[in-house]
Amino acid sequence: MSLIDDLIELSQMISKELPESALEKTRLSLLDWMVCGWAGKNEPLADKLRQLAGQELGVGQSSIIGGGKGPARMAALVNGATSHALDYDDTHFAHVGHLSVGIYPAALAVAEETGSSASHLIEAFLVGAEAAIRVGMKLGSSHYNLGFHQTATAGAFGATVAAGRLYGLSPMEMRHALGLCATRASGLKCQFGTMGKPYNAGIAASNAVECAKLAAFGFTSAEDGLTGPQGFISTHTGETGVHDTFSTPPGEIFFFEENKYKLHACCHGTHAMIEALRNSKKAPGNLDRIAAVLLHTNPRWLKVCDIKAPKTGLEVKFSYAWLAGMILRGDKTDDDHVYTDDLALDPELMGFSSRFTVVGDNEISDMQARIDLTLVGGETLSLTHDLDSPQSNLLLKDRLIAKAISVIGDKGQEIWRQLEHLDAMTAHEIGKMISDG
Amino acid sequence: MSLIDDLIELSQMISKELPESALEKTRLSLLDWMVCGWAGKNEPLADKLRQLAGQELGVGQSSIIGGGKGPARMAALVNGATSHALDYDDTHFAHVGHLSVGIYPAALAVAEETGSSASHLIEAFLVGAEAAIRVGMKLGSSHYNLGFHQTATAGAFGATVAAGRLYGLSPMEMRHALGLCATRASGLKCQFGTMGKPYNAGIAASNAVECAKLAAFGFTSAEDGLTGPQGFISTHTGETGVHDTFSTPPGEIFFFEENKYKLHACCHGTHAMIEALRNSKKAPGNLDRIAAVLLHTNPRWLKVCDIKAPKTGLEVKFSYAWLAGMILRGDKTDDDHVYTDDLALDPELMGFSSRFTVVGDNEISDMQARIDLTLVGGETLSLTHDLDSPQSNLLLKDRLIAKAISVIGDKGQEIWRQLEHLDAMTAHEIGKMISDG
Repeated sequence: MSLIDDLIELSQMISKELPESALEKTRLSLLDWMVCGWAGKNEPLADKLRQLAGQELGVGQSSIIGGGKGPARMAALVNGATSHALDYDDTHFAHVGHLSVGIYPAALAVAEETGSSASHLIEAFLVGAEAAIRVGMKLGSSHYNLGFHQTATAGAFGATVAAGRLYGLSPMEMRHALGLCATRASGLKCQFGTMGKPYNAGIAASNAVECAKLAAFGFTSAEDGLTGPQGFISTHTGETGVHDTFSTPPGEIFFFEENKYKLHACCHGTHAMIEALRNSKKAPGNLDRIAAVLLHTNPRWLKVCDIKAPKTGLEVKFSYAWLAGMILRGDKTDDDHVYTDDLALDPELMGFSSRFTVVGDNEISDMQARIDLTLVGGETLSLTHDLDSPQSNLLLKDRLIAKAISVIGDKGQEIWRQLEHLDAMTAHEIGKMISDG
Repeated sequence: MSLIDDLIELSQMISKELPESALEKTRLSLLDWMVCGWAGKNEPLADKLRQLAGQELGVGQSSIIGGGKGPARMAALVNGATSHALDYDDTHFAHVGHLSVGIYPAALAVAEETGSSASHLIEAFLVGAEAAIRVGMKLGSSHYNLGFHQTATAGAFGATVAAGRLYGLSPMEMRHALGLCATRASGLKCQFGTMGKPYNAGIAASNAVECAKLAAFGFTSAEDGLTGPQGFISTHTGETGVHDTFSTPPGEIFFFEENKYKLHACCHGTHAMIEALRNSKKAPGNLDRIAAVLLHTNPRWLKVCDIKAPKTGLEVKFSYAWLAGMILRGDKTDDDHVYTDDLALDPELMGFSSRFTVVGDNEISDMQARIDLTLVGGETLSLTHDLDSPQSNLLLKDRLIAKAISVIGDKGQEIWRQLEHLDAMTAHEIGKMISDG
């Protein structure tokens, strides 16, 4: 059995085989994704992609975030990029990427096109996300370190599974859809920091709709374009070994349950530190009372989010020192708008940063943080947090609602008000919420 | 200077910097490409892609081979795949791929969208083809041997240069278009033998239109997505070295002048042998008079086109023995329709094949063949051919016209009748010839 068989098996799982705990998280992902999409709709890149849609026109199959409808492939392209514009969407650490922004745009576009229910949309997302995670885990660090962007590459395979399920593809058609995806999927990390990064999410979604739809029309491809000889995995990792199925077959474990959500509008590598500081009841709210801070973090983050003296609001999002100061003095970190260029010049944070030290520590995972916080009086507080610790979906929901309201106000509340009714809605009603003003 | 600078420079060259000899070959490529497109329009894969176009609809910017008009991105997708369906289009051996099927569909679609003249279309193709060749040469055999399909990958960059020139992109916009192409380009060789292979040509063309158009809208990307750190070349070759500009800058040499055309509807690896046999005035037309044939060919072709006992018409296209017998007894080899499954069962060819031997010979280039043909009386003829020998464009034109008539009859004549008038035509008139019945 090869990994592609796992993906085909996932695509064909019936509703009652899907665990409710995973489905519940899938609903949270949908609403959080809609919030990110709405929040990104005024970014320049979103505007330019809607310009493309507005120029090409075409049949109104699927909703486009922030404006009208278009062909499913086009809606997937625009919505993928738009929802990833602020980089505020969910992350799956083992997959090494963002699931919702590649898979939900494809799934929603096809669910609308096919007149599906929201519950079918949610199920399609779940099996697609699980497929993407398994492909991402197989591609692994050799793929990421070469320079590929799993959100786009592994994401396209997951999005193809989701789209193909909604088109009702047979196992053989799904095999061809995945074969076509193997020759179509792309996305490089060198785009980070440019419009090319969110574009990568859009191309994953759009490629998936195209490949699934062509397979539905009877288009054929390599039999195993994913794990076969010179297939996607060997060409995109440099590893030509055998790519067997996982030891845990689909249905036994849903790795998707480990999906993580961003609750702060800054680099995910800073979130464990932020949560540790937030959770401390003893930390003072006055930065003058803090003599020194020592942060232990996983060494992989040192090159990512330890900008010592940020020069722009964007750089503040990647600065442990600035973010720690903000949290300790009570600033909001969940609203994208607080990260202004002026914040990078804040004298209080600048002063605080001189008392802030970061060390890389291999004992600390990339989801953990440990902080030694020394007060002026000499007392030292030891704070820790692990993003991977069990967290109830109930608490998560409340925090995601708070995030939504911080970022897009009433619209956020309106989106989250649908949570209890989701399963009775149509995909079209979901689409309408994010396309309409 | 980096390779991406060469590509930008090519895109900005003015008409009088383009050599007439190269432009003349570009005209031949256009008409031969149109013939291949028309010949492929009834293939199942072409039909399925037109089904996609017919479902999405959209603005009628550009002609679709075999039917109507659609958005430029869509026309590029359908036309790229349709024109590569029969694999009868041109080849550039140093680029390691087919230039016309990735680049002309993009260039024609954008030339129609922008209301350009045919002469601007031809110039855009030439600089795009030259760009694709240079990218293909840089990607080299490490890219090809990993499993990537240069027609699709290097082709996308060339098509982006062609499309971007027709959109009038500035050097900085062209840089962003190429950066976007770097994250969008894809295509695997494991699709060979399936609909996925022609699809690869279509995705190159479609990606190019999308990237060039987004750059025209002001979309930005990595500054050097091609040759920069973790850019396309390093991620797709496994080679992280410096990718400098060529020692022969654009304008000094047009590698495109080495472009080769298929005059027989079978594997390009068999063409040197076919030409050697055709050119012999002494070879008998009766296979019974031939006692033995010994073919020397480049070892790379042994795995490609030395099928000893073909079982289908498709396999005959990859069988030295069958094709040699066909040529010697006077069969046509330029009409795709002669390659029937019955031909694989032909008793005369089967008998002849038992007297036919092939040896790999590193002294022979992949464009050469050497044949020792022993007659029943004992006389031995020694025949050779080199596809890379100088051949006048005039003779080439006559043979391409004969090919066109063999494959699509009157329509072929009609297409080639435009050769003298091309520069006075509009791109729209070119498009109309292949979209209309």
